[in-house]
Amino acid sequence: MKDNKNITSRDVDFAKWYNDVIFNADLIDYSSVKGSMIIRPYGYAIWENIQSVLDKKFKELGHVNVQMPMFIPESLLNIEKDHVEGFAPEVAWVTHGGNTLLDERMCVRPTSEVLFCDHYKKIIKSYRDLPLLYNQWCTIVRWEKETRPFLRSREILWQEGHTMHATEEEAKEETLRMFKVYEDFQKNYLALPVIVGKKSDKEKFAGAEETYTIEAMMYNGVALQNGTSHYFGQKFTKAFDIKFLNRENKWEHPYQTSWGVTTRMIGAIIMTHGDDYGLVLPPNIAPIKVCIVPIKETDEVKECIKYLEDGLKANDITFITDHSDKSAGFKFAEAEVKGYPIRIEIGPRDLERGEVTLVRRDTREKITINKIDAIYNIKTLLIDIQHNLYDTAEKRRNSMLYNDVKTYEELKDIALNKPGFALVNWCGNQECEDKIKDELGLKSRCIPTNHDISDGNCVVCGKEGKVKIYFGKQY
Amino acid sequence: MKDNKNITSRDVDFAKWYNDVIFNADLIDYSSVKGSMIIRPYGYAIWENIQSVLDKKFKELGHVNVQMPMFIPESLLNIEKDHVEGFAPEVAWVTHGGNTLLDERMCVRPTSEVLFCDHYKKIIKSYRDLPLLYNQWCTIVRWEKETRPFLRSREILWQEGHTMHATEEEAKEETLRMFKVYEDFQKNYLALPVIVGKKSDKEKFAGAEETYTIEAMMYNGVALQNGTSHYFGQKFTKAFDIKFLNRENKWEHPYQTSWGVTTRMIGAIIMTHGDDYGLVLPPNIAPIKVCIVPIKETDEVKECIKYLEDGLKANDITFITDHSDKSAGFKFAEAEVKGYPIRIEIGPRDLERGEVTLVRRDTREKITINKIDAIYNIKTLLIDIQHNLYDTAEKRRNSMLYNDVKTYEELKDIALNKPGFALVNWCGNQECEDKIKDELGLKSRCIPTNHDISDGNCVVCGKEGKVKIYFGKQY
Repeated sequence: MKDNKNITSRDVDFAKWYNDVIFNADLIDYSSVKGSMIIRPYGYAIWENIQSVLDKKFKELGHVNVQMPMFIPESLLNIEKDHVEGFAPEVAWVTHGGNTLLDERMCVRPTSEVLFCDHYKKIIKSYRDLPLLYNQWCTIVRWEKETRPFLRSREILWQEGHTMHATEEEAKEETLRMFKVYEDFQKNYLALPVIVGKKSDKEKFAGAEETYTIEAMMYNGVALQNGTSHYFGQKFTKAFDIKFLNRENKWEHPYQTSWGVTTRMIGAIIMTHGDDYGLVLPPNIAPIKVCIVPIKETDEVKECIKYLEDGLKANDITFITDHSDKSAGFKFAEAEVKGYPIRIEIGPRDLERGEVTLVRRDTREKITINKIDAIYNIKTLLIDIQHNLYDTAEKRRNSMLYNDVKTYEELKDIALNKPGFALVNWCGNQECEDKIKDELGLKSRCIPTNHDISDGNCVVCGKEGKVKIYFGKQY
Repeated sequence: MKDNKNITSRDVDFAKWYNDVIFNADLIDYSSVKGSMIIRPYGYAIWENIQSVLDKKFKELGHVNVQMPMFIPESLLNIEKDHVEGFAPEVAWVTHGGNTLLDERMCVRPTSEVLFCDHYKKIIKSYRDLPLLYNQWCTIVRWEKETRPFLRSREILWQEGHTMHATEEEAKEETLRMFKVYEDFQKNYLALPVIVGKKSDKEKFAGAEETYTIEAMMYNGVALQNGTSHYFGQKFTKAFDIKFLNRENKWEHPYQTSWGVTTRMIGAIIMTHGDDYGLVLPPNIAPIKVCIVPIKETDEVKECIKYLEDGLKANDITFITDHSDKSAGFKFAEAEVKGYPIRIEIGPRDLERGEVTLVRRDTREKITINKIDAIYNIKTLLIDIQHNLYDTAEKRRNSMLYNDVKTYEELKDIALNKPGFALVNWCGNQECEDKIKDELGLKSRCIPTNHDISDGNCVVCGKEGKVKIYFGKQY
């Protein structure tokens, strides 16, 4: 029997709570394939909603979808030095086709920069061919040793944008434009109060000149890198000798970007909004926004169900009606564990007064209203829930942001005792960054976009600070 | 410079014509990955349209999407004997993760029956859990030696439905229901006059009890198997020991189906409708339905473009306007090679009379009309083109159907001299089927749904005929 007693409290054991929510809400299942997960229908429906919103946005901005091969021959992976060093240790190698040993082994793509470059080299000839704004929805493979549903998996569903431009300015603009698309999407649809900024050189994507990152903070104060946008400059286009005739009729290497988000975002939703009763989904991304629960299916209740279903359909509000013969209590718990934003309880007694009860998932507050007003109330409530989830998450996050850390001792105290992110002045040297990681277990998150100017000395070495940068524990 | 002179005539060299069309229309590109193709934006947009129509239909019928792992451990592949014999010789094997040799090698899925069964075993317990109507959009890998764009590729984009049912009747119904979805889709959207029927035992899917097939006939009379729906009975569910408590409270193995279509359908569109000027796309699946070509961009022409664009947008008719500085002739050829169903030519002189010219791609007929009537004409023309493509293809196909073949000599004459399909009486023995394949190079296509009753003796052995069956050359 499924009830919320199966869920460990998130304040008792957050990791166990996370898995309990995922399995009780039927989001994923383990498989016989170690390190890979099965994304079950309810989990996949969330991903389909994410895809649909982002794909539309990408296309509005002029991007088109393509499909590249899933394999990368070893020699192709080896062309860009930093890139291969970053990825070769964690790829899956195909060595045989049927019973035949391959002449050259191939890896399953861990990301597709080299495949896109290989293609771009053939199709880019003139500035007239630029920009090329390509995107791909696909699965990638990274041979992780430790895996965790949605957060770290050997197979990852994602999208990867790869664009080529005639000028540095335009490519940098694209990097930031798509970065902003991610930020807006995560704020407005996933209700995640993300922190945005630039990665340190050490934490950059293998091969990138600049990496911009979306950093989400989970309920337990741990960071989740939740999307990145990279500016490559001419690094790959030189390595792959991709050239175009520019407006001055001279050969030039184009300027490149790539950007991606993954199913990891579903992990962020769970760990930001979920509670001890299960999943809590922001209405703007929930596959099912309303769950109708009849307490007892009398004729009057049936008539009311029909009335509400018609109203929801007419307003494009997705719903399910739980007609099962389970107890009302069980159905309520089930609706909570699945995180449906609103539950409507319809009982014969309330109906005598023309009333039904709306229960909002975020606050679990009950609102008894006349059924005539139900659809209007649901529409406003969905908007309210979306905002409330964001606000609640933002308040919690702010309570775990330490933006005034001046000394290494303070930073150490945070690392040991206070979950969250600490903003410190930094000289920019990797040695200092490494020391914080090795001694305190904190990794640099990002140099935040809005307050990146140092106002003091480096928290580690005491030399002049160059930037402010967040540190935090990470998934 | 791109013009139609790059395209070999389809009557001179059909294979070369096919590749010329594909590359001139920018549908695919080769890559450094042998046997894999890059699906370029225009080709992928056709696939996106196919996905969107089918996915909607699947969901209307109650199916939900999931994502299974892409790898299959060898031991899991080995569970169903017929299945592994069919697929093991043509899979890609992953042997290493990073630098580590795997304990057990895994193949990249060539199809996912065993992965679905592995999952179903865990989630099916009672008749209440059934039916399970799952579908997956993904890439599969089959290590083909000879490849051909869209038709035979090492990587294949497809959808695979996998369903489980409490009764044989229901599973058989599902097999036929989805088969009908494919048939209707290919007829109504792709304008393919397909022949539908059952595969012989020899040609069945590895592990299936019954395989239903959609057989399309290409311009050159060669068959393309263009979608299949399989009934598995309890073959896999016994091998995997999947059991449920039925309504009589007894343990029973559920009944299974699977069904799939691939990007191969794009190959069928090209080889059915294309001509010596390039691709011809049925309006119901064309990513771009109308191409506006200004002969010269005067103020009046610009105004007219705006007027037409507004009308097309208001009617949800996709279009592009070719503003490039290429010659009108070049633009016309480009619009033809891309197979846009309708081209609108706007010239200053015609406009003086308020007229524009519509050119339909299927017949290349020109129709001069008042611009006021353009949108109405385009709407009816699109419907007309869709029907005309089907009718033309059907007439051609019928001219290559030999439904009255009584003797082996007649069959031999067809095999040697007449492209197309021959319908023969067959005793049902594989020896006779093999003889036709070995001696005449024809493979059995299907026992057609509508006229499967034998009316004479087997065309090979002369014994009593059991069924009528089509034979033909195949891709």
